[in-house]
Amino acid sequence: MISLQNDYSEGAHPQILKRLAEINLEQNPGYCTDSYCASAAEKIKQACACPEADIFFLVGGTQTNQVVIDTMLAPYEGVVAACTGHVSMHEAGAIEFTGHKVLELPHHEGKIEAAELQELVSRFWQDGNHEHMVFPGMVYISHPTEYGTLYSKRELEAIARVCHEHKMPLYMDGARLAYGLTAPGTDVTLADIARFCDVFYIGGTKCGAFFGEAVVFTRHNMPAHFLTRVKQHGALLAKGHMLGIQFDTLFTDNLYCEIGAHAIRLAQLLQNGLRTAGLPLYINSPTNQQFVELSDAVIKRLDERGVVYSFWEKTAPDKTVIRFVTSWATKEETVRELIKILKEVL
Amino acid sequence: MISLQNDYSEGAHPQILKRLAEINLEQNPGYCTDSYCASAAEKIKQACACPEADIFFLVGGTQTNQVVIDTMLAPYEGVVAACTGHVSMHEAGAIEFTGHKVLELPHHEGKIEAAELQELVSRFWQDGNHEHMVFPGMVYISHPTEYGTLYSKRELEAIARVCHEHKMPLYMDGARLAYGLTAPGTDVTLADIARFCDVFYIGGTKCGAFFGEAVVFTRHNMPAHFLTRVKQHGALLAKGHMLGIQFDTLFTDNLYCEIGAHAIRLAQLLQNGLRTAGLPLYINSPTNQQFVELSDAVIKRLDERGVVYSFWEKTAPDKTVIRFVTSWATKEETVRELIKILKEVL
Amino acid sequence: MISLQNDYSEGAHPQILKRLAEINLEQNPGYCTDSYCASAAEKIKQACACPEADIFFLVGGTQTNQVVIDTMLAPYEGVVAACTGHVSMHEAGAIEFTGHKVLELPHHEGKIEAAELQELVSRFWQDGNHEHMVFPGMVYISHPTEYGTLYSKRELEAIARVCHEHKMPLYMDGARLAYGLTAPGTDVTLADIARFCDVFYIGGTKCGAFFGEAVVFTRHNMPAHFLTRVKQHGALLAKGHMLGIQFDTLFTDNLYCEIGAHAIRLAQLLQNGLRTAGLPLYINSPTNQQFVELSDAVIKRLDERGVVYSFWEKTAPDKTVIRFVTSWATKEETVRELIKILKEVL
Amino acid sequence: MISLQNDYSEGAHPQILKRLAEINLEQNPGYCTDSYCASAAEKIKQACACPEADIFFLVGGTQTNQVVIDTMLAPYEGVVAACTGHVSMHEAGAIEFTGHKVLELPHHEGKIEAAELQELVSRFWQDGNHEHMVFPGMVYISHPTEYGTLYSKRELEAIARVCHEHKMPLYMDGARLAYGLTAPGTDVTLADIARFCDVFYIGGTKCGAFFGEAVVFTRHNMPAHFLTRVKQHGALLAKGHMLGIQFDTLFTDNLYCEIGAHAIRLAQLLQNGLRTAGLPLYINSPTNQQFVELSDAVIKRLDERGVVYSFWEKTAPDKTVIRFVTSWATKEETVRELIKILKEVL
Repeated sequence: MISLQNDYSEGAHPQILKRLAEINLEQNPGYCTDSYCASAAEKIKQACACPEADIFFLVGGTQTNQVVIDTMLAPYEGVVAACTGHVSMHEAGAIEFTGHKVLELPHHEGKIEAAELQELVSRFWQDGNHEHMVFPGMVYISHPTEYGTLYSKRELEAIARVCHEHKMPLYMDGARLAYGLTAPGTDVTLADIARFCDVFYIGGTKCGAFFGEAVVFTRHNMPAHFLTRVKQHGALLAKGHMLGIQFDTLFTDNLYCEIGAHAIRLAQLLQNGLRTAGLPLYINSPTNQQFVELSDAVIKRLDERGVVYSFWEKTAPDKTVIRFVTSWATKEETVRELIKILKEVL
Repeated sequence: MISLQNDYSEGAHPQILKRLAEINLEQNPGYCTDSYCASAAEKIKQACACPEADIFFLVGGTQTNQVVIDTMLAPYEGVVAACTGHVSMHEAGAIEFTGHKVLELPHHEGKIEAAELQELVSRFWQDGNHEHMVFPGMVYISHPTEYGTLYSKRELEAIARVCHEHKMPLYMDGARLAYGLTAPGTDVTLADIARFCDVFYIGGTKCGAFFGEAVVFTRHNMPAHFLTRVKQHGALLAKGHMLGIQFDTLFTDNLYCEIGAHAIRLAQLLQNGLRTAGLPLYINSPTNQQFVELSDAVIKRLDERGVVYSFWEKTAPDKTVIRFVTSWATKEETVRELIKILKEVL
Repeated sequence: MISLQNDYSEGAHPQILKRLAEINLEQNPGYCTDSYCASAAEKIKQACACPEADIFFLVGGTQTNQVVIDTMLAPYEGVVAACTGHVSMHEAGAIEFTGHKVLELPHHEGKIEAAELQELVSRFWQDGNHEHMVFPGMVYISHPTEYGTLYSKRELEAIARVCHEHKMPLYMDGARLAYGLTAPGTDVTLADIARFCDVFYIGGTKCGAFFGEAVVFTRHNMPAHFLTRVKQHGALLAKGHMLGIQFDTLFTDNLYCEIGAHAIRLAQLLQNGLRTAGLPLYINSPTNQQFVELSDAVIKRLDERGVVYSFWEKTAPDKTVIRFVTSWATKEETVRELIKILKEVL
Repeated sequence: MISLQNDYSEGAHPQILKRLAEINLEQNPGYCTDSYCASAAEKIKQACACPEADIFFLVGGTQTNQVVIDTMLAPYEGVVAACTGHVSMHEAGAIEFTGHKVLELPHHEGKIEAAELQELVSRFWQDGNHEHMVFPGMVYISHPTEYGTLYSKRELEAIARVCHEHKMPLYMDGARLAYGLTAPGTDVTLADIARFCDVFYIGGTKCGAFFGEAVVFTRHNMPAHFLTRVKQHGALLAKGHMLGIQFDTLFTDNLYCEIGAHAIRLAQLLQNGLRTAGLPLYINSPTNQQFVELSDAVIKRLDERGVVYSFWEKTAPDKTVIRFVTSWATKEETVRELIKILKEVL
């Protein structure tokens, strides 16, 4: 069996496992008030060049989106997002569960455009009936997007400008941020993100941790009584030190970027393999998710060879886009073997 | 001043006022348990040719949409609606407030199409990740739509077929139903609506009542403990007999359709006037809302002449669509005067 | 039949009906933006001696409690109330529906005590785990209470002092305020209420209006975008001018207090009759609700004589407390007849 | 420093850490669809002698209470609980956040009584206005309770009888269940719990796991589309196999009970030490939480000696109840040292 199904199939990077084992018998205070959380927060602030950041650690991605969006929005506000955004499509209505509408924009390979955002907001404020409508109160982007694509610094800046002009916090879902930071050709750094965004999260679950997401409020703007609200959402981890030690490890000796770089190198290897095999990329993704459109006959042969991937979408009655994902745990030989099989089944 | 701004500017049809005055000193039990509610429900069942209907009376349209949709959906379900639907656009997020997503379809002059509904539902069930998505649990349509348009019987039947095949209740927002039932060329009767829809409401507020909407559950399918849930939503009227007497009056001696027919006759008069004046209709609406696109210069002159209308939308930097609405209270002379002014300001 | 079952069995005071009829054909803008709402608000401000008040009109009591409490509380806060408070007991969980806990205090004939409120708040802040608890964010009282009792000015002042010391808005449910303002022996005026409370509502539904409650925010503290939030709760009345004209009438020529005084006079007459008949009052209520404990045998005879009352509670296997309520619509002869029957059935 | 502050200060039992490390590089499908979850579920069913159980794994206790209660209740229902219950007091309103009221009963050392439950339910159904009230829809108990106490089999049976007579599911919060199952004198087994309760959870976080709670629905009564609802609550763990491996380990070779027995032995040692020292137990707790009332002067000396405990409550101006907690990680020498210090500081 060869699986590149996703980046959260394995446990955690060995270094994280090692440190978790080392402190296993230590006693720590609960609910993220321990010294590992404090140390991790300090390291993240430095990595973001953002001394005024407030940082909190949560367990999972949907949970983080739900808690951040619900606590940052006023009750009469909704969050603007691409129609393909994780919050729009794949969170089982977790945002609406907390009473907020997702105001959808068209997507461009998973990204939103500043001009379309501007238009949505202008139309809202110009509408004589806007008091009967949901106020656009925040903007959600993912980076990398659900399609593996990345914003350029110029694009981010343009979106941030619209946001700040209209006093809407800009929120970045960084579930796969490690792969965005280390992608070839990106000009967006962690410090840029901290500068442009009012809040974002650094993904752990899909980037080498057992679990965990580090929420960074970049303007000392963590909502009041945030711990209480996290608890109220059922999202407060008792043994918060498990989150602390994981992020402390990820942000020691550049491990977070090393993890990203490893996955990117193998994703590039795969991309080249696909190209060599004459398989056109469905989307030009510079990150760890690679999409390819295949005939259903070819896919059937892949299945028979024990290749595991993610179904992405049907594009024609006999064609399907599938996704391969690399991670810290992916081995070079696995990718080479996959390319070989792909060539054989074509 | 000449105002055709909307159909809820005045109080109530004189016949309703008269009966309300007649029973003013009577004592009635509260919360819609009185004899007028019972009598109104009986008359509505007959008008719908639907003896198995359960009927409840609420105060306003957004409230009704919120209560019906929230109580008919399972917690993990959302409601499918046109992106221009009242629940999508103009209810300040009242549906999301109760935890449910509005799953938007494109609109065709305010209407949804059965084929696009079928596609949305098929895509959902075919998606390998649909357990991480909001289930399409109900379909919302308005009739007349927000653009004044109407479904044909064939269109309704096609939508109902998709709904029932996928066990999604079909819900019709009939805020302006009187004008739909009496529009020229419509082949949809109240009995058809009761047959195709699992639940719908007969609008009172915009059709001659002081306020009030009659919710009709057509298959003995009123949600369990509905009164309690209405109360929980803050939507239960203490003096429910006020709702009963109004709907009893509307469904006595065909008053509801008389009210519709009067408004339709004047809307047709206005439409002809617009056509004669060479003004192209923005939408071909057979009901009591008429839309016309004018240059901003012309609109300014209308303003100066004291004409009151609703702003609808900007279509170009110097062009705007405005809306005129007739009702039971509109006078023929007012419409004639408006046509005269329109011709003068062109 | 003789019914003193409640104060919302009839329609509206004739003066209200008259004015509603007079303006029936007038055109008014929607959603409480009309001149009658403005005029009513002005008169209420004067009656409250509170020029800095913000005023909004809603339809019903539970709706008003839900909207006011939800919009005034932070999401992590709950509302403190007597365990017998309407919001605690008889609103089908409308407060919890919006995500907030009701923090219950013991009741003393329906009232809370400042000392017990102080203790609840102190215990909260002293608790080392209070970040894991619901913050007391607001205090709810009713005046008259559900037992017909009234706070004295001194009691109100003491509660207000605790509230303001801990930055908790004090909210008074005045569903039956007319009867509180005109009760014998009360030293609490409308101006006192405006001075002590941060928000309260002047009840219309139970005090002579067809429906309607006037919410008074006494410190220019109406929550931001209140109209939008009212809409989001499904609580915005399209024909808001119906609320305006009713409250304008109630606050013209002292009608609101006249209505109260009439009901109080008859309640006192009834109370004296009960005393004369040797029937001990269950609670010493100075307002329009009178409670009496009777044996079930006596109650059965009342039923046979066609007397209609409210069941209140069982106090023993064969004893029950019942409630009689007077209103603007109660006639003196009805009360005298009731007293006569009571004496006969004993 | 000597800390017996709580049972979730350390990481996980070494056996759990070991197995987590062993499978670290394995690939597993997400969201609890892996083989470890399946195996753990099978072992739990056997331990409960409940082949018809449905089992799901969640991360934390408040989360579990929120998800279970919200998904098992109808929207118009509330959950009955002791006023000292975790859901009533220490979950920041997580139950109300999902729209449900906690209907509080008095507590008896943390427990509820069947007779008082029966009375609450009877009063509800006898109330003529119960349609305006929150329906009692479920009963929450904790075992051990927040005070360390346990229900007897007879008590459980009596509560279950009331529940089932009124069709209210009985739900047990077993956050510390390991210590309940192994307490001296208890006659309640896991099979009894599965028999009496409709749903309960087996606590991992406080019983030797890194985190995790196993929810057991005992009558094939897991709510429809439970995974989707868990996701909607933000509570679905991506790497569900981490939950699976932990519970699989806890239910292999009787580890769960071994962990409980170890903590109980040391709690008994501590209890004897306290008794020997002449310190009266505040509550007679047979489980791993021990409560003692001390003068503030003594407590100050404990602080100076580096003893860490939990503050419980003030009982007098100069007296405080504190709590000591043992766990799988507690060492006998630590308890002996604590007893020695206690004797010295008295």
